[in-house]
Amino acid sequence: MVRSVRLASLLSAGVCALAVLGAGAAQAQSAGAIRAAEQLRDQALQSNIALDYVTQLTTRFGARPAGSPSEQAAAAWAADYMRAQGFKNVRIQEFPLVGWERGEESATLLGANPQHLVVAALGHSVATPAAGVEGEVVRFRTLEELQAVPDGSLRGKIAYVDAGQLIPMQDGSGYGPLTRIRGAGPGVAAQKGAAAFIMRSVGSDMHRMPHTGTTRYIDGKVPLPGFALSGPDASQLSRLMDMGEKPRLRLTSTAHTYETKSQNVIGDLPGRTHPEQVIVLGSHMDSWDLGTGAIDDGAGGAITLAAAKLMMERGAPARTVRVILYGSEEVAQPTNTGNGGGAYLRSLSPDELKNHVFTGESDFGADRVYAFGLPVGAQGSDFAKAAARVLYPIGVLPSPDPELHGGADIGPIVEAGVPVFGLNQDGTRYFDLHHTADDTLDKIDPKQLSQNVAAWTALVWLAADSDVDFRAMRPAATAGR
Amino acid sequence: MVRSVRLASLLSAGVCALAVLGAGAAQAQSAGAIRAAEQLRDQALQSNIALDYVTQLTTRFGARPAGSPSEQAAAAWAADYMRAQGFKNVRIQEFPLVGWERGEESATLLGANPQHLVVAALGHSVATPAAGVEGEVVRFRTLEELQAVPDGSLRGKIAYVDAGQLIPMQDGSGYGPLTRIRGAGPGVAAQKGAAAFIMRSVGSDMHRMPHTGTTRYIDGKVPLPGFALSGPDASQLSRLMDMGEKPRLRLTSTAHTYETKSQNVIGDLPGRTHPEQVIVLGSHMDSWDLGTGAIDDGAGGAITLAAAKLMMERGAPARTVRVILYGSEEVAQPTNTGNGGGAYLRSLSPDELKNHVFTGESDFGADRVYAFGLPVGAQGSDFAKAAARVLYPIGVLPSPDPELHGGADIGPIVEAGVPVFGLNQDGTRYFDLHHTADDTLDKIDPKQLSQNVAAWTALVWLAADSDVDFRAMRPAATAGR
Repeated sequence: MVRSVRLASLLSAGVCALAVLGAGAAQAQSAGAIRAAEQLRDQALQSNIALDYVTQLTTRFGARPAGSPSEQAAAAWAADYMRAQGFKNVRIQEFPLVGWERGEESATLLGANPQHLVVAALGHSVATPAAGVEGEVVRFRTLEELQAVPDGSLRGKIAYVDAGQLIPMQDGSGYGPLTRIRGAGPGVAAQKGAAAFIMRSVGSDMHRMPHTGTTRYIDGKVPLPGFALSGPDASQLSRLMDMGEKPRLRLTSTAHTYETKSQNVIGDLPGRTHPEQVIVLGSHMDSWDLGTGAIDDGAGGAITLAAAKLMMERGAPARTVRVILYGSEEVAQPTNTGNGGGAYLRSLSPDELKNHVFTGESDFGADRVYAFGLPVGAQGSDFAKAAARVLYPIGVLPSPDPELHGGADIGPIVEAGVPVFGLNQDGTRYFDLHHTADDTLDKIDPKQLSQNVAAWTALVWLAADSDVDFRAMRPAATAGR
Repeated sequence: MVRSVRLASLLSAGVCALAVLGAGAAQAQSAGAIRAAEQLRDQALQSNIALDYVTQLTTRFGARPAGSPSEQAAAAWAADYMRAQGFKNVRIQEFPLVGWERGEESATLLGANPQHLVVAALGHSVATPAAGVEGEVVRFRTLEELQAVPDGSLRGKIAYVDAGQLIPMQDGSGYGPLTRIRGAGPGVAAQKGAAAFIMRSVGSDMHRMPHTGTTRYIDGKVPLPGFALSGPDASQLSRLMDMGEKPRLRLTSTAHTYETKSQNVIGDLPGRTHPEQVIVLGSHMDSWDLGTGAIDDGAGGAITLAAAKLMMERGAPARTVRVILYGSEEVAQPTNTGNGGGAYLRSLSPDELKNHVFTGESDFGADRVYAFGLPVGAQGSDFAKAAARVLYPIGVLPSPDPELHGGADIGPIVEAGVPVFGLNQDGTRYFDLHHTADDTLDKIDPKQLSQNVAAWTALVWLAADSDVDFRAMRPAATAGR
């Protein structure tokens, strides 16, 4: 209810603002820009570009692990795709990377009745010895429980954290508490003396497909072999322990790292009157190795690329719209390997960076956008009112929690001071699929994909065909960063 | 509507029949038996025996491939479980079997952008050479299309049948048209000269988990390596072909057969007044190797065992109720290997067989029973009216299509003349899980499992605590078999 009331007042305020547009208030949205955004929004709902892009990408190249030949080939293809669509200054920006290959892996419950469990090594996890690691399983319900046991007390054992299934939430907030375990778990387990680390997958589904994801380096590497068990397998192991069994596991993995390169693919729709002012639309090209990266994050590239293409067809807006398909989002380790977001930031001169006027990232699947977020200082502005008016008809409401950080791809430029917007997608089923073999094209709902394109096209057009200074709208606390 | 009207007339007829029960019509149901069936039905809804059995079975033993040590160990455990529950004459009936082990398998899409596809060898499929089989993929939409090409015309190629996803139906009728392809496909492909056979999984889900299942021997073995692709992988391969690519695949498999034994586990609830008259409740102990066989068919054992146990607690009915957990349902080849149903039939003397008065099989998951079927001649009988009355309150209606064959386990005794009843389960989601890694305990809904137990307990009690001659109720056409 609170939201509805608020939206109604925003909308009526927006209509009033339109009535006085002739007065030429600073940073007001022109009636023409609003009309154009509405038309683009409706055209986007009918457009097939996004579905075409993500279909070709995932079908032709399959999985695209960061730094792999398939990520490199997909990047070259995507650059050609952008050129064919009419993007300007299409370029590939390479950077060095420590890649990671899964190899083979297995988990066997030992004893009188051996059972095969379905596992996936965590990203950047080290290999086991060839014969595997064998040990008794010691279970913890939380990371804190594992942290609480004495150092060295798990010698020869396998540390197992089962914190339960991820709780599905519209905003994806069930993810954070569990990724902490994935990131820090192997390091903590090593400190306690464990021979290996396993955990219940960070996921909300109950399918026999583990969720991989990167774990954290300690002193330049992941200190232990680390694995995710699928939900049903974690339930099986925990249930066996609840029955009083003391299971022993044998874990094998041939995972390894290697020197390689990744790349960002960049294409521009140059601005009509202020080409030096850039709005960056980000997503990532790489995927995990298990699926074909349709929702994570082929969809993001499809949405942003289609949005820019629709604007191009209308005629460029005042400012430049830049689409970046970042390389190496998934496996980047801050301590020793690159990622596309950092490489892009480093390529910018201070003047270029200052002319990055706004940015947003699409990296949360292909389900519908339900809210938009703007810098805190933008609340109540004419821009916010225009955005609310244009986005409401496709089910997108103002977010009470402004998006101020972006994701891993645009994170570096946001940290460097570029204002950020958010178009929040429904994440209720995202963590059923995320980082699993099941992240495939058939999971994309074309109607919801089109709604994403509509939201991006409309909001970005409003920002790009204006002279709004989003930097001036940042709240005092972050304005000086 | 037709069904509702019919049920209403059946029910009112049943009530009339009850009103004249004192007249002692032959084969009428006693009011006491009906009351007992109703009470047992309601007790079953509160019982935890079925869930306890299937939880222990699937958790302690995991997958139970026919003839494997885990099937053998699970059978020994189940016999102990039956004894502990008070079953009499609990025995293990062994028989020889040609078992099959999957080993390792893989499918790689070759070319500039290699991709890993998720496959499972079909049951009893032969291995590839160690280096695998490589060839161009030739697609067919139906088995008939494959049958229509000239013999020898697929030399060096891989025959691929993509007949689309299985259509989910309440009665499971989407399965038949596709299992034909799985059974006959490798033989037909061999005749055409193909080097291997692949098909879209026989399944209704779109998860990256292939559905295995047995394929047919020709001259004593499966003539080709045969594989099922998961739904998303089949869509990927077919889409690539729709884009004009001519994909080549490399397939590997180390599958092999071996000599072993399997066994039926048999336990009785001896009849109070006619212990020589036997009603057999069937299900199977073995499972496919990929999952833990919770719905196929741990649930069936749980349902039938719990039904008999509930009757035992009340005091035995007139006739003997025999629970058989059959071995080796899944991989039996008529031409050269055993199955539990055949072994049981062969163990019976002609007199014993004649005293098998009724039989039913639970082998279609754990979702609710929606209909009951009786021999055609039973329609309109007092027994049918009593059954309709007792089962209607738990949502079970008379089936318009009487069950006259049973499944693979009771099939041999049914062929030999034993009358059969059916309690038809909702199969809408059964083929999402059937024969995949995802057939695990968490897929069982405890409430629906209990409803199954209630339906079995009530119907079997009515039959077991009566003198109804079901053999006399068979229609003329099959009565003489």
